[in-house]
Amino acid sequence: MDLKNIIADIKRGVAEIIDEEKLEALIKNYYEKGENFYIKAGFDPTAPDLHLGHSVVLNKMALLQKHGGLVYFLIGDFTGQIGDPSGKNATRKKLSKEEVLKNAKTYEEQVFKILDKEKTFIKFNSEWLNSLGAAGVVELTSTFSVARMLERDDFTKRFREQSPISICEFLYPLLQGYDSVALKSDIEMGGTDQKFNLLMGRTLQRIYNTGKEQAVMMMPLLEGLDGVNKMSKSLNNYIGVTEKANDMYAKILSISDELMLRYYELLSFKSTKELEQIKQDLKQGTLHPKKAKENLALEITQRFHSVALANEAKAEFDKVHSANELPSQMEEFSVNGTIWLAKALVECGLENSTSSARRSIGANAVSVNSQKVKDEQMQLTQGEYILQVGKRKFAKLRVI
Amino acid sequence: MDLKNIIADIKRGVAEIIDEEKLEALIKNYYEKGENFYIKAGFDPTAPDLHLGHSVVLNKMALLQKHGGLVYFLIGDFTGQIGDPSGKNATRKKLSKEEVLKNAKTYEEQVFKILDKEKTFIKFNSEWLNSLGAAGVVELTSTFSVARMLERDDFTKRFREQSPISICEFLYPLLQGYDSVALKSDIEMGGTDQKFNLLMGRTLQRIYNTGKEQAVMMMPLLEGLDGVNKMSKSLNNYIGVTEKANDMYAKILSISDELMLRYYELLSFKSTKELEQIKQDLKQGTLHPKKAKENLALEITQRFHSVALANEAKAEFDKVHSANELPSQMEEFSVNGTIWLAKALVECGLENSTSSARRSIGANAVSVNSQKVKDEQMQLTQGEYILQVGKRKFAKLRVI
Repeated sequence: MDLKNIIADIKRGVAEIIDEEKLEALIKNYYEKGENFYIKAGFDPTAPDLHLGHSVVLNKMALLQKHGGLVYFLIGDFTGQIGDPSGKNATRKKLSKEEVLKNAKTYEEQVFKILDKEKTFIKFNSEWLNSLGAAGVVELTSTFSVARMLERDDFTKRFREQSPISICEFLYPLLQGYDSVALKSDIEMGGTDQKFNLLMGRTLQRIYNTGKEQAVMMMPLLEGLDGVNKMSKSLNNYIGVTEKANDMYAKILSISDELMLRYYELLSFKSTKELEQIKQDLKQGTLHPKKAKENLALEITQRFHSVALANEAKAEFDKVHSANELPSQMEEFSVNGTIWLAKALVECGLENSTSSARRSIGANAVSVNSQKVKDEQMQLTQGEYILQVGKRKFAKLRVI
Repeated sequence: MDLKNIIADIKRGVAEIIDEEKLEALIKNYYEKGENFYIKAGFDPTAPDLHLGHSVVLNKMALLQKHGGLVYFLIGDFTGQIGDPSGKNATRKKLSKEEVLKNAKTYEEQVFKILDKEKTFIKFNSEWLNSLGAAGVVELTSTFSVARMLERDDFTKRFREQSPISICEFLYPLLQGYDSVALKSDIEMGGTDQKFNLLMGRTLQRIYNTGKEQAVMMMPLLEGLDGVNKMSKSLNNYIGVTEKANDMYAKILSISDELMLRYYELLSFKSTKELEQIKQDLKQGTLHPKKAKENLALEITQRFHSVALANEAKAEFDKVHSANELPSQMEEFSVNGTIWLAKALVECGLENSTSSARRSIGANAVSVNSQKVKDEQMQLTQGEYILQVGKRKFAKLRVI
C-alpha cells in the first residue's frame, strides 16, 4: 500500500483538518492492524434534496470508507421534535416519527449512490438525546460559557448587530457536540461553515471523558454553476443529485473551464495522480477543455444514473448543441383558443411566470418554430408551434 | 370586611408589586365568592438554615393565607440533580432523593412556625421539569433571546467585566419561570433581587397559554443587626429562626431604635393601624423605645418558641443587663493545669480562636470574675473563674 498517495488523495480539496496526525494514524492503523475507525457526519432531518454541493462531503467519506472508515450517517431528528412555544418561528414544523423515517429513506436513495452501504450506519440522535433528559441537557450547558459561544462568527455578528439570538440556538451546537460523545466518533466531517460546531464535538468528547478526541475534516463549499456563489437551490445554480441524466450532463457542460477544474478536484473520483495528468494535458493542449468537461459530465452522470443513460445524455446534448437540431423528443401540450406567448410558455412549463417569460423574450432567449421572438405581446392562434427557451428547453404546443 | 385595611396590611413593607390590580382583585374575589388563589415561592433544595431575613417573605405569605391564599412552597430540587461535567464547579454536589426529602422536612420544621400548614402545599419541581424532557428544555429556551437574558443586572455586569457566565445559568431563570407554568400560580413572592426571574414566570405563563399571568410581589432585603448590611450568615449579623429564645430575644434588644421600626414593619404581625399607633406613641413619648423593643422581641421570640420561653428570655436578659448580675445558669468547664486566658476562652466556647480572644481583650470586652482584663498574656492558675465576653457570653471554668 502506498500510504503517501492514499493520504494525498484523502487530503485533496480539503479546506482544513484539525489533528492531521490523528487522521494519518487512523489510516496507518487500518493498514497495519486492520482496525476500522468511525466517521461522523450530521444531516438535517427535513426532506432531503441533495445537490452536488452536498456530495463534496459524501465523496470524501466514500473515499475514507475505502481506507478503513465506517460511517455514522447521523440524522439530527432530535431537533425535529422541538416546537416553538413563543410562536415566533411559525415555519418550524414538528416532524413525526414517520416523517423522519420517510426522510431517512429518501436520504438512503440519494446517498448510497456515493457511500458504501455496507460500511454505513444510519443513526438518529433522538436515541441518546431524549434519554439525556432535562437534567442532562442543563448539565451539558454547564460546559460552555456565554462569551465563548458568542465567539461563533455568525453569533458575534448578530449580537453586534442586535439581531436576536434565541437561547436555544446556543443549545444546538452543544447537542450536536454531544452526538460525538454518544457515538465516540474518530473523525467528524462537515463544511467549513460548521467549524465551530465540529470542534464542539471534540471538546465535549474530552470533557465527558470518552477517551476520544475526534479529528475534524472540513470540506470547502462548492461553487454553483455560475462559478461565483456557493451552490444552492435558492440561487438556482445547482445540480440536484436526483436530476435527470440529460439535465445533469448539460449543466456540467455549461460550466467554465476554470470551474471544471474545481469540480474535478471536489467531485471526481479520479485519483490525485490522474488529476495531475489531466491538468498537464490541458496545459499542453493535448486534451481539449470540452473533452475534459465531457469526461467529467459522463463520470458524474454515470454515478447518479448509469453508463447507458450518461451516454444517451451526451448524444442528446451533442445533437441539440452541436448540430443545433431539435431534440428527438419533446413534451406536447394543447390549449383551447388563441393564447399569449408568455402565457403559453408558462403553460408548457418552460417558464415559472409570465413576467419571467417576458424577461426571457426581452433577453432574446425565446424562439417559436426556430425563429427568435422580439414581440412580448405575440399571440399564438390556431396551429402547432415548437417553443424554445434558451438552448435546452423545448415544448410542442397545439393551439386548438 | 374592611377590604381597604386588608389591602393596606398586605402592601405594608412591600418593595414592589407587579400587577397591583390583579392582587387586589384576587383578595376581593376571595371575600366576594370564597375563591382561593395560589401563591408560589421557591426555595433552595440544600439544607435550610433560615434567618429572620428569609422570614420577611414567609410573613407576607402567612398574611395572604389569612385572606384566601394557598401557598405552593416550592423546593427547587430539579437543579439538585445536576452535575457539572466540566468539573469547574467542584463544590456543586448532586443531592439524592433522600437528602432532598430530609431538607424538606427541615424546612417544614422551620416554616410552619410562620405559615399555616393547612394552607400550604410542599412541591418539588423535579416532578414536572424531569417530564419536560430534553426536547421540552430546548423548546423552553426558544422563548427568550440571549440579549434579553443579558439584561439581568448581574449578567450585564459579569458580561461587561468578562467574568464567565455558564450557559446553564441562562437556563435556570427559564426553568424557574416554567415552574409558574406548571403550577398556574396567581402570585409569585420573592426578594427584590429576584425581580428578573419572577417576571420570567409571568412571561412564560403567557407564552405557554396557561390562561394565567401571575402578579409578582417583591419584599425588600432585611437589614441585619448592624442596620446597614443585609442580614446574612456570612456577615454574622443575623438571627436564625432556630436560635435559642435567650439569644433571639437578646439580639433583638441590641438593635438601634431606627432599625426597630424597620423590623416592626417587616417582622411584626401587628396590623398597620396598630403600627401607626406605636409610631405615634414613640413620637409623643408615651411609649419608651426600650419598651417597644421588648414588645417586638417578645412577639418574635414567642413565634419561634413559646410565650413561656419568651418571658423567661426577657427575665434572663433583664437580670444580666439591668442589674448587671451574673446569669442564673452558666456552662461549666474544667482544665488541667495553668492555662492562658485566651486559650481558656476558646476552650469554653466563648471565642472561636485565640487571636479573636486577644482582639476581644484588646477591645476591653473580657472580664474574669467581673473584673475587666487588660493583659493579653494573663494566665489562669488553679482555682475557679467566671469568664465573660461582651455582655451576654458567660462560662464557669475550674482550673485543676
